[in-house]
Amino acid sequence: MSYNLLKGKRGIVFGALNEQSIAWKVVERAVEEGAEVVLTNTPVALRIGATQKLADQCGTIVVPADATSVEDLQNLVDKTLEYFGGKIDFVLHSVGMSPNVRKNFPYSALDYNNFSKTIDISALSFHKLLQVLYEKDAMAEYGSVVALSYIAAQRTVEGYSDMAEAKAMLESIARSFGAVYGREHKVRVNTVSQSPTLTTAGQGIAGMSDMYAFTEEMSPLGNASAEECADYIVTLFSDLTRKVTMQNLYHDGGYSSMGISASVIEAFKKGRE
Amino acid sequence: MSYNLLKGKRGIVFGALNEQSIAWKVVERAVEEGAEVVLTNTPVALRIGATQKLADQCGTIVVPADATSVEDLQNLVDKTLEYFGGKIDFVLHSVGMSPNVRKNFPYSALDYNNFSKTIDISALSFHKLLQVLYEKDAMAEYGSVVALSYIAAQRTVEGYSDMAEAKAMLESIARSFGAVYGREHKVRVNTVSQSPTLTTAGQGIAGMSDMYAFTEEMSPLGNASAEECADYIVTLFSDLTRKVTMQNLYHDGGYSSMGISASVIEAFKKGRE
Amino acid sequence: MSYNLLKGKRGIVFGALNEQSIAWKVVERAVEEGAEVVLTNTPVALRIGATQKLADQCGTIVVPADATSVEDLQNLVDKTLEYFGGKIDFVLHSVGMSPNVRKNFPYSALDYNNFSKTIDISALSFHKLLQVLYEKDAMAEYGSVVALSYIAAQRTVEGYSDMAEAKAMLESIARSFGAVYGREHKVRVNTVSQSPTLTTAGQGIAGMSDMYAFTEEMSPLGNASAEECADYIVTLFSDLTRKVTMQNLYHDGGYSSMGISASVIEAFKKGRE
Amino acid sequence: MSYNLLKGKRGIVFGALNEQSIAWKVVERAVEEGAEVVLTNTPVALRIGATQKLADQCGTIVVPADATSVEDLQNLVDKTLEYFGGKIDFVLHSVGMSPNVRKNFPYSALDYNNFSKTIDISALSFHKLLQVLYEKDAMAEYGSVVALSYIAAQRTVEGYSDMAEAKAMLESIARSFGAVYGREHKVRVNTVSQSPTLTTAGQGIAGMSDMYAFTEEMSPLGNASAEECADYIVTLFSDLTRKVTMQNLYHDGGYSSMGISASVIEAFKKGRE
Repeated sequence: MSYNLLKGKRGIVFGALNEQSIAWKVVERAVEEGAEVVLTNTPVALRIGATQKLADQCGTIVVPADATSVEDLQNLVDKTLEYFGGKIDFVLHSVGMSPNVRKNFPYSALDYNNFSKTIDISALSFHKLLQVLYEKDAMAEYGSVVALSYIAAQRTVEGYSDMAEAKAMLESIARSFGAVYGREHKVRVNTVSQSPTLTTAGQGIAGMSDMYAFTEEMSPLGNASAEECADYIVTLFSDLTRKVTMQNLYHDGGYSSMGISASVIEAFKKGRE
Repeated sequence: MSYNLLKGKRGIVFGALNEQSIAWKVVERAVEEGAEVVLTNTPVALRIGATQKLADQCGTIVVPADATSVEDLQNLVDKTLEYFGGKIDFVLHSVGMSPNVRKNFPYSALDYNNFSKTIDISALSFHKLLQVLYEKDAMAEYGSVVALSYIAAQRTVEGYSDMAEAKAMLESIARSFGAVYGREHKVRVNTVSQSPTLTTAGQGIAGMSDMYAFTEEMSPLGNASAEECADYIVTLFSDLTRKVTMQNLYHDGGYSSMGISASVIEAFKKGRE
Repeated sequence: MSYNLLKGKRGIVFGALNEQSIAWKVVERAVEEGAEVVLTNTPVALRIGATQKLADQCGTIVVPADATSVEDLQNLVDKTLEYFGGKIDFVLHSVGMSPNVRKNFPYSALDYNNFSKTIDISALSFHKLLQVLYEKDAMAEYGSVVALSYIAAQRTVEGYSDMAEAKAMLESIARSFGAVYGREHKVRVNTVSQSPTLTTAGQGIAGMSDMYAFTEEMSPLGNASAEECADYIVTLFSDLTRKVTMQNLYHDGGYSSMGISASVIEAFKKGRE
Repeated sequence: MSYNLLKGKRGIVFGALNEQSIAWKVVERAVEEGAEVVLTNTPVALRIGATQKLADQCGTIVVPADATSVEDLQNLVDKTLEYFGGKIDFVLHSVGMSPNVRKNFPYSALDYNNFSKTIDISALSFHKLLQVLYEKDAMAEYGSVVALSYIAAQRTVEGYSDMAEAKAMLESIARSFGAVYGREHKVRVNTVSQSPTLTTAGQGIAGMSDMYAFTEEMSPLGNASAEECADYIVTLFSDLTRKVTMQNLYHDGGYSSMGISASVIEAFKKGRE
């Protein structure tokens, strides 16, 4: 299925590690919709993941970049502008990692070197990316930048730990930079707050499968899949959403607007008998 | 325990039906804190409830009023101004009822006469009350008006039905009238979004005890009780919160900021095995 | 420009009064994107407006309906199902009117018959529409229902009066009914919170042009136009947004995420010298 | 005026630099309300400010601490526990500074060493403080921790720069740690989102006086002063708000719930003529 929604558009996608990745699905859908996409990931991810395979499949290039390095991001944007021979229409920031979560530090006993890394990788990298794009005047007018977020930015999800802070900061960066970028260059910046998704990253969170089952039951339409997320992001990259900016957009089957569902209560009640 | 927080203050409290009522606790605490309170309730509630007993206990009067009747509200405010011999410092609106909930109409098969009644009783009555107070210039400067609300105004709670719409509208009235009343007379208007509470009204909602158990488990501090709600409302009536207005204030043990707790997930998981 | 995003889809659009109307633009864009659309409006609006002309232009029918009348809505849905020979994929609710606004009643001196009309027309009509669609099982799976809202539902806009309450209630209905409709029939329900728009309805609000200028300046991308709103709504009717439900989606050039812009401050400061 | 609201309570207050400081007013009011307070500030602030004078006035001690240093915080908590001979009932975190703001880096050309400092000082310090309190089991049951925030965490305020991200993260920490601390020790954690205040820190922000005038006009009750903020914080430290946790509480004269006021529009319009 293709609508040519992104015909002639060109973008950068971070984080397409493997077929489970939301970013992977975004690349596939963007290409189906007529876009050209440059892929990027950290050198480590490039070694362990299948990003190059996806690039081959799409006939495009991979530019390695550590999203915490301004130099790497500058190189990425330079290479991309050169490869496209023109400005960039869309960017997906799908970057996040918490050493505190990985190493199971409880939230009340966090390691602060880890915390700073979580913030650097998962939030500050988004500002760096935007600032590099801005400095190089790399985005086309009405270009669209999207970062992936999660509802833990608004409501505490036990186990998500300092990633909650990273996502809160990420969403704030989208608003703050969106104000500048919108006013000066008509570039849009938004975050998509996605259902728990069984990606490699998602599965790294302890108790992820239970959390997934819980939100699946709570959400009237069930959890949103990686494919569905890619479909949605395609609309945000398209010309049909030109006045949507500085928003955090829930893509979650209705979860964010649910308080209590009868079926969750039912299971909860039974589980406590 | 008394701090004399409301010494010399005078108010009206709606909805003190019986000892379980939040409004009842508010009257008791307000009086303990040095306030004088005029009680009001509908004629029907006055017959079936114990409001007169509470009035006797506090040495005050009851003025019957149907909160949907502008005339009754005018009479209430006139009688109160006369009784106090001066302006009113605080008002508690604790009024709500849905015939659709009572009669178990499913949300997708509501009766519209009932719906209009829900709105009239539970939301529009708040505007009428404020408008009557405003027209009679009955509130003292920095007076405080509080209405009781519930998180279903923001997130769907299955079973709460059209009361969700009533509470959304109630909170909107607090903002809209708060803007006028604040600017012109320095009167504050807020809503308190309280935990599920096992009052007579609360117990009328099907599945209330399960919902109560669920939020008790989800909330880091547990559900807030009627007594605790009364304590909180006393602070909102006091001079210590003079610049708080047009807010919906969660009094819920942290529930509103919770996404997923480990213990709820645990019970949920067990219940589905 | 057409992507065939709505190819084979069929919908109902309320409120296409004239070429300024957002609904009018939605009809045009939906048809361009391959949809068939049945138009509806109140008998009065049909007399004064140009809806029939649009129907002729699109080769479709107009079914008169007062959105406050369950009977009219039933007739509308029956006629539409018959006309299409199948289920409905999308519906736009663009219905709102406040006699209190029209007649310039101040917010602290509202007429309550008017208030009830505001609510009936602008909010309750949305529940009636959804309930009729639901009862007749008229919506296709993953069908999409959208209603137009405005940020006054969250923040007081002086002059918008009781329409604030209507919009708060409208958005609540989207959540409440979205929960039921999503779970049972996979139908999505959302509201779009649009910039002030210089439609016939918009121009009926006193001080609209100043408000428009203010939000134009505050919004980093400027106000969203009716055409842009139509583009956006097309994405919400499409299959690319299947897991977006129970949301209030700001389409406003970033206004909703702005606190204070330097340029607004500048003008404000100058105006007070 | 004193209610003895904090009789017998003991707390720590950060950031009482001089008489303009909100923290200074909090100390004065807390002591008036019967509390004992240990003061703390960075060594630099202690040199340039008047904290010691306030300590003398209150007959208490100052413990120097850089809030970014876990060691300093441990020392602070140890000394405080020793001084009080018992647990701590309340803490005020009034700590924030952005080198990017101070040095006028535009938001699209931030220095990342500065950004990390902003986050470390203004947000991460709050987690460190909570973690040290938690590890030492220093807080009494139903103890209350409050941090000062600002609405730029939700809506972009041009000029507030990376402090927006710091405040978003600060509020997230309040939720995340509040969930743990509430469940395990019944300790409350909240943020107060205060009006712009003409403190030494506030005056360091470029264009602060215009921003102050703008929010003064927009807020129905006008901006909240430092004294009023202290009054409000006293209620949050008291036993009357025991079930309020994980909240961001606006103390702003209604500003946060305002969209557009007629008077602001008036000045804006005039300024553009």
